[in-house]
Amino acid sequence: MTLLVIGSQRIDEFATAARALKPPFEVREWPDAGNIADVTYALAWGPPPGALATLPNLKLIVSVGAGVDGLLKDPTLPNVPLARYVDPDLSHRMAEYVASQVLWHQRRMPDLVAQQERKIWNYVREPAAKDVRVGVMGLGEMGGASLRALQNFGYQLRGWSRTPRTIAGVTCYHGTTGLEAFLAGTDILVCVLPLTPDTRGILNRELFRKLSISGRHERLPGPVIINAGRGGLQVEADIVAAIKSGELFGASLDVFETEPLPPSSPLWSLPRVIVTPHLAAESTAPSIAAYCLRQIDRHRRGMPIENQVDRARGY
Amino acid sequence: MTLLVIGSQRIDEFATAARALKPPFEVREWPDAGNIADVTYALAWGPPPGALATLPNLKLIVSVGAGVDGLLKDPTLPNVPLARYVDPDLSHRMAEYVASQVLWHQRRMPDLVAQQERKIWNYVREPAAKDVRVGVMGLGEMGGASLRALQNFGYQLRGWSRTPRTIAGVTCYHGTTGLEAFLAGTDILVCVLPLTPDTRGILNRELFRKLSISGRHERLPGPVIINAGRGGLQVEADIVAAIKSGELFGASLDVFETEPLPPSSPLWSLPRVIVTPHLAAESTAPSIAAYCLRQIDRHRRGMPIENQVDRARGY
Repeated sequence: MTLLVIGSQRIDEFATAARALKPPFEVREWPDAGNIADVTYALAWGPPPGALATLPNLKLIVSVGAGVDGLLKDPTLPNVPLARYVDPDLSHRMAEYVASQVLWHQRRMPDLVAQQERKIWNYVREPAAKDVRVGVMGLGEMGGASLRALQNFGYQLRGWSRTPRTIAGVTCYHGTTGLEAFLAGTDILVCVLPLTPDTRGILNRELFRKLSISGRHERLPGPVIINAGRGGLQVEADIVAAIKSGELFGASLDVFETEPLPPSSPLWSLPRVIVTPHLAAESTAPSIAAYCLRQIDRHRRGMPIENQVDRARGY
Repeated sequence: MTLLVIGSQRIDEFATAARALKPPFEVREWPDAGNIADVTYALAWGPPPGALATLPNLKLIVSVGAGVDGLLKDPTLPNVPLARYVDPDLSHRMAEYVASQVLWHQRRMPDLVAQQERKIWNYVREPAAKDVRVGVMGLGEMGGASLRALQNFGYQLRGWSRTPRTIAGVTCYHGTTGLEAFLAGTDILVCVLPLTPDTRGILNRELFRKLSISGRHERLPGPVIINAGRGGLQVEADIVAAIKSGELFGASLDVFETEPLPPSSPLWSLPRVIVTPHLAAESTAPSIAAYCLRQIDRHRRGMPIENQVDRARGY
């Protein structure tokens, strides 16, 4: 009985965290799988296609990510129970990321850091939170946690979702008909939408032009977007053009059309554009390890595992 | 009866905001004081030493900043009531700044931005807020508002003050005897102390070495300091040495021994050191003007002014 941590990154980190919890079995790190006949459990994050199929006695796979579309694409994926990681702390992590980026842009930190690079001491006029309107697209767990974090700073908050929602202290809009009014009163746009045929490419130049056009007063010099949802939501050529033209004042992007973001992308070096490597809502290794060991324990006791993937449905 | 706005920057901004409130007296801008015998009130932001003493009929000074150590250093400061600016707006601004910097360091953004500059897509291990211990030195209006802002993210919070304080959800320490224990369990140190003979130079290398030495687990690679109090609280040569040696992992500094920070200072270009030009808790001009006019009104009606400075205590 052995757990194999298998995938493309952070293997040692997850294995170390799992060992620290002193499980009653061995924890190995791919590609040092030892005798593969021992391996009964796998903690997987982006394993190479076919790799899991080499394990003859596999009984359970735990996916590090909440999205399992990558695993399911592998036609050789063994037909054993598959749990996806659903972390109660994930929405907290997203709220930290969103708040850190909203505050950074509101307080004009990109310009202050640019001044620092040139050793320039100069006052920069920063709006107060209460004078900035933040709009969140996507009002599920992630969007809700982000709004709660922002609320404490006194931002004027609005939200947009596909279907109607009500959140205390947040002006809510919905559907295609509500989108323009939502955008017109949004200075900082936070996007945590899921990627669906309806939302693909929604962050495009036409949308950017509708941002922050009503009632501007004591606000940022221009609108800012923060995408922590999926890369497919954004049209990167449009973001580049809008930053260059000034239609967008700044951006924080955690997700990209192609990941890793290719070195040739102009996004790396545009003014007031912050690029992070898809870690806005990534969980800590101890949380992931504890979750994995809990599923193994449940499986051994004959209990149902949590968040078992329905392969037909895809999640 | 005349209000003179006097100081080193933003004079026109404050004067314009004061005039917009249509006070029943004239508002003048230093150095165009006109007939100085008219001047009964001063709104002061870093006036040159001796300048206020030239006003023979001065009755009241309102300080734009909450810290009045600069004014009190001037031996010629007229002996009239002195109000320091304390406004809910100011503590909100401080809370924004402190939260923006704490989140930035916790989420390892200085390293992520350094990677972005080199177009490197690489996972960086970031602790969760609940695994980071933030200690706030100074538990008055500024410190209290900062702690409330941080509390919502789930940080482990502690506070230190000269005299005992109790704040829900915050482990409080006080006095010289409580300092070591406070520091030992602090990963990110936020300093919003007033500058007094007791606190001058308190942020020195001896203190840095006491930070974050107990119970480290899944935390930042090293301690971080954030000084948004006064430049005189810090020994800048010690910060430079501690960053270079790794005793400090990072810093956000809004205040400096000499302001503006001289171009020759090594602080401008150290890794993970963020330099901002003393604007952490700078209020908007309309708020400051309204506060100033309210104090003048209270003074004229014979009511006590708000937040009158006790010159012996220093704040």
